Amino acid sequence: MSLRVLGVDPGLTRCGVGIVEVAANRVPRLVSVHTIRSASDAPLEQRLLIIARGIEALVDEFHPDAMAIERVFAQNNVRTVMGTAQVSGLALRAAAERGIPVALHTPSEVKAAVTGYGNADKKQVGAMVARLLGLAEVPKPADAADALALAICHAWRRNAPDSVAGTLGGSLTPAQRAWRDAEKSVRTPRLGG
Amino acid sequence: MSLRVLGVDPGLTRCGVGIVEVAANRVPRLVSVHTIRSASDAPLEQRLLIIARGIEALVDEFHPDAMAIERVFAQNNVRTVMGTAQVSGLALRAAAERGIPVALHTPSEVKAAVTGYGNADKKQVGAMVARLLGLAEVPKPADAADALALAICHAWRRNAPDSVAGTLGGSLTPAQRAWRDAEKSVRTPRLGG
Repeated sequence: MSLRVLGVDPGLTRCGVGIVEVAANRVPRLVSVHTIRSASDAPLEQRLLIIARGIEALVDEFHPDAMAIERVFAQNNVRTVMGTAQVSGLALRAAAERGIPVALHTPSEVKAAVTGYGNADKKQVGAMVARLLGLAEVPKPADAADALALAICHAWRRNAPDSVAGTLGGSLTPAQRAWRDAEKSVRTPRLGG
Repeated sequence: MSLRVLGVDPGLTRCGVGIVEVAANRVPRLVSVHTIRSASDAPLEQRLLIIARGIEALVDEFHPDAMAIERVFAQNNVRTVMGTAQVSGLALRAAAERGIPVALHTPSEVKAAVTGYGNADKKQVGAMVARLLGLAEVPKPADAADALALAICHAWRRNAPDSVAGTLGGSLTPAQRAWRDAEKSVRTPRLGG
């Protein structure tokens, strides 16, 4: 029994979409990873349509059991946050329309899940995603790596006995710490690879 | 020759949709007005799906020549701005998918267009919408009146010889002032009504 999760790192210029399968032993496997792009000089409505259709095509191709989308905050980069929010809305609608369970995770939840550290930088997240998935290289661009991290985060949190999915903030509960330690033991065999 | 415009005041709890036809003499006529609602305790993705399908059903029923959506700013009410942005993205996508020209207008553009005053309050906007459309009562809720104001604003700006559609800010150019004066003369016969 494995869980197939499609993660979306929403963006108007680059939207990362990563699909992973996570086995019962919590080891994740890469299924597919994509970056949907739209030209920054195209009209906003055309950009949204391109991104929405791209997400929907991948959902329909890979039939995930669940979707995970990065939670956008209005406090973040004001210049890009509106487009990011609009894309997240399109991804949420795509999930609802297909009856696929969907959850939002904050960047710090994702970082904490994959690196054990809620303030990890993009490079650390990318490196850990590559290690967890047994990839020779870090997925590029960062949006693609982030989408894979989201999918892994969602699968791990969903399977946790004391699920904290949906809670805010980046600090670890005792249950999260226990899982982080368990995840470290999963990762150890790969550390040399 | 008249122009049929569908205006959307995006919102997750209440999304106003107003359809008007504006004749060549710039007099607007009410076609239909709606408020799409979603329950605040429903999951976000379900709320977005309900609102999106509601907008799309009205677009497909009324076949507007153009759509106008209120431009959302990240600086506005942080608590609700993300949902508002998500709904605006769904409305923009609905327009793009159907090949319907769509424009964003700021609240101050809309207020200036219908009242001649960019800082008009909701009550003034509602009263002027009712007067312009020859309605006995102000459309309720405010979201519905705002959607009608957006549609009227769009038709007037689009038809202006010195079109300023798409520009930011609420101050009037000389051309806008001339149109405002022209609009006042259109309104005058209705003032007693």
